[in-house]
Amino acid sequence: MAIVTVGVVGLGLIGGSLALDLVDAGVDVVATTRAEEARAGAAAAGVDVVDDVASVVRRADLVVLAVPVPALDGALESVASALGALGDAPRPTITDVGSVKGPVLARAADVLGDATTFVGGHPMAGTERQGWSAAIRGLFRDRSWVVTVTDDVDLGRWAAVADLALRVGATVVPARPEAHDDAVALVSHLPYALAAVAGSMLDSDPQAPLARSLAAGSFSDLTRVAGGHPDLGRQIAVANRGALAARLTEARARLDALAGALDGLDPGWAPEAPEVAAVFAAGRRGRERLDHARAEPGPEATVALDRGGLVALGERGGRVVGVDPPATGASEVSVRVVEPAAAEGDR
Amino acid sequence: MAIVTVGVVGLGLIGGSLALDLVDAGVDVVATTRAEEARAGAAAAGVDVVDDVASVVRRADLVVLAVPVPALDGALESVASALGALGDAPRPTITDVGSVKGPVLARAADVLGDATTFVGGHPMAGTERQGWSAAIRGLFRDRSWVVTVTDDVDLGRWAAVADLALRVGATVVPARPEAHDDAVALVSHLPYALAAVAGSMLDSDPQAPLARSLAAGSFSDLTRVAGGHPDLGRQIAVANRGALAARLTEARARLDALAGALDGLDPGWAPEAPEVAAVFAAGRRGRERLDHARAEPGPEATVALDRGGLVALGERGGRVVGVDPPATGASEVSVRVVEPAAAEGDR
Repeated sequence: MAIVTVGVVGLGLIGGSLALDLVDAGVDVVATTRAEEARAGAAAAGVDVVDDVASVVRRADLVVLAVPVPALDGALESVASALGALGDAPRPTITDVGSVKGPVLARAADVLGDATTFVGGHPMAGTERQGWSAAIRGLFRDRSWVVTVTDDVDLGRWAAVADLALRVGATVVPARPEAHDDAVALVSHLPYALAAVAGSMLDSDPQAPLARSLAAGSFSDLTRVAGGHPDLGRQIAVANRGALAARLTEARARLDALAGALDGLDPGWAPEAPEVAAVFAAGRRGRERLDHARAEPGPEATVALDRGGLVALGERGGRVVGVDPPATGASEVSVRVVEPAAAEGDR
Repeated sequence: MAIVTVGVVGLGLIGGSLALDLVDAGVDVVATTRAEEARAGAAAAGVDVVDDVASVVRRADLVVLAVPVPALDGALESVASALGALGDAPRPTITDVGSVKGPVLARAADVLGDATTFVGGHPMAGTERQGWSAAIRGLFRDRSWVVTVTDDVDLGRWAAVADLALRVGATVVPARPEAHDDAVALVSHLPYALAAVAGSMLDSDPQAPLARSLAAGSFSDLTRVAGGHPDLGRQIAVANRGALAARLTEARARLDALAGALDGLDPGWAPEAPEVAAVFAAGRRGRERLDHARAEPGPEATVALDRGGLVALGERGGRVVGVDPPATGASEVSVRVVEPAAAEGDR
């Protein structure tokens, strides 16, 4: 299904930036938001601003729910009633931009009454700022945008969401909802939590004034995300609490092991510390592999993939950079893919 | 005592950068190092490169031991024998640039046979690179340089080390050795450990390729220091293992509390989570206070401080930006100080 009109519900940092890029790309954008200044700003930018979700759902081929995760439940309810009013007319594809996917897909299937209208999405983009005033053009360029793959995902709808992400300059990473939630718990939500914990230690410490005088780049880098709106950290942590709690437990066990290795060292001046050395060596390997994966993308190819093929592509570090809308009910989708860097051997 | 000649033992990132700035400042610099390319490069830059520590100790008024902490023990032994050869001639002041101070001061007093010749120093500056090839001019500009204060510190020697730091553009933070070690464990060594732990999680995880595809700014910021030479992280962790282990245990307890708060939440869509919110709120406060302390220095004044006054200045977040060499045996030193920002109220 080719996209003619994109609907956007919520015009904050993500929804607003998406609307700006889509208008620039010549896509018709119909949007709604409760924020007055966003309504005026978006209209001035060429967005067709309407009063309610029902109007968006009625007119769009693809609807992006760009609201905070806590508000997503209510947005899905509004979409459900609007879909009901459509009767037998074709349903637009519904997607979101939330930082957790498993709970959102389960909730969407429940509220919308089917498991195929909704395809989950998550652009890995953002800043510490929020709201329409923070919206900027090019926010998604060269960023990863996860589009979820389930056993019963409609590949036509999947392709429509992928096409949306590609139009604003992102690359698409296919992933099962649970795999996404675990991965972002590690690379996004755990860093948030560690930043908050480290910041809180500096906040409450009796040595805080002296410690602040001595804080250099490493502490500033670690705590940067803690400077954002604290409610955002809470929302993300709560939304992905299962996967994050597991990662926190893993991190805690590794910190225990390091503390134990340090406590067990000989009292000498500079004792051998192989266990301590191993932690820092593994940390460097992880960082080097991250830099390597970014610096050296692998070969490109155009292939036809089924659901399992899309999942496998994402799991081995590959990306989708082009997509052809498949026929309705197709079991494969033709995609242009970038494989991971050759030397990136994890398995 | 006014500095005429500064001795530098070790011409790596810190020693090399210090030598370059001192030569530019018109100070005579006599240095020694085992690294051949450093000898040639330093000589070309105007440093008087000599063959051994004894020659440095014989000619300098102030000797900076700029070697890695594991090598400091050996450097102190060389200095001790050189001092012995001086007989009754006045001893130069000895200082260092190591990231831990308590163990270094204890070791220096033991090896040098007195507790006043050595004054500990720690410039809060560095990059991920090492060696003479990484040495750059201006490395210490506007950075903090800790100069340790003990009950029996010679204020004339303390002023000489402080004057050295000020000459290369740093500001001086007076601190007791133990307070320094605890503060850097929090703001420098804990971030190193968290970066290594997070990097190691990405290194070993079965989801690593997918996770790398989704890693954005927060994970990159968190793990940046993990990309440095892993041996540096090990050295720092081992050198300050007592204070770091305590901070790791504190961080682990806070991670436990956060994981427990997440596990205890109601199964609903977006349950209230006051305990989770409190962690992120405290994290933001800590970060804001850090930014505030940097953005808004307090009033300046010239005052005469005794040892306790210097310690109190550092503990409340103040700095020394100017110093007058006191008379030998003086119990106070005249310093130009910058008080912490007024609103920075921790106590």
